[in-house]
Amino acid sequence: MANRGRPRRAGADEEILRAARELLEQGGYGAFNVDIVAERSRVAKTTIYRRWATKGALAAAAMENTPTATEPEAILEETASLLSILTSPDADAIDVMRAVLTPRRERLRAALAPRPDAHDLADMLLGALLTRLILEDKPAIPSIPF
Amino acid sequence: MANRGRPRRAGADEEILRAARELLEQGGYGAFNVDIVAERSRVAKTTIYRRWATKGALAAAAMENTPTATEPEAILEETASLLSILTSPDADAIDVMRAVLTPRRERLRAALAPRPDAHDLADMLLGALLTRLILEDKPAIPSIPF
Repeated sequence: MANRGRPRRAGADEEILRAARELLEQGGYGAFNVDIVAERSRVAKTTIYRRWATKGALAAAAMENTPTATEPEAILEETASLLSILTSPDADAIDVMRAVLTPRRERLRAALAPRPDAHDLADMLLGALLTRLILEDKPAIPSIPF
Repeated sequence: MANRGRPRRAGADEEILRAARELLEQGGYGAFNVDIVAERSRVAKTTIYRRWATKGALAAAAMENTPTATEPEAILEETASLLSILTSPDADAIDVMRAVLTPRRERLRAALAPRPDAHDLADMLLGALLTRLILEDKPAIPSIPF
């Protein structure tokens, strides 16, 4: 007799993250909702929460998986675009910022590495996005002092 | 017959803000607690909440009232010191960051004003503190490119 329960699907994580990313891109973090992600990725909400404990953890994971730029300008654009979903910050917003910034700071430092001030400069450039996100709800990219 | 109720005290707001600031300096935002502020400033907790709706609003108000430096380095040090209390972010943490950054960005831009890139540079310098606060729990000041 065939197993008539919900089949286990390989790649469910990827589907959940893709649905989460799409929802974030469409409505921002303010409208982000685990129920809708569950609906769109056709899994039970409990399946999502077993894998990611909070809404913020899921949003963070979805943002870690975006394509990765390697030029300074492209890294900043990617980061600005990801941070721009955070206009409705809640208790998880800092976790989301951390998830967005961690891999991109590494790449930006590498991209700026020929400069002796690469570390400070990477933190300043990413930081300008944070300052503007927090003060103006809009992470506009500063001109890069090259 | 004398009014035997709790007397209205002029300067109660200032006392509440001073108590809040002291508590923040002692224990950081993670240990910040409206009950303790009420106890130390000898007012009812409801008095505080009538004036500031949330714990974060009170913390933000307390930080707006710190002494104001005018040299770029001093403004950055003051900002770093204030942001460093935010190692236990909660839903109000973004409001506190906003309260810390708003007046200091204005002053930093003014202090850097002879430079044509004063606006970008101010946002980058303050932003480096945010990046480091979020990624390292420590808003270390970058070297200022003068």
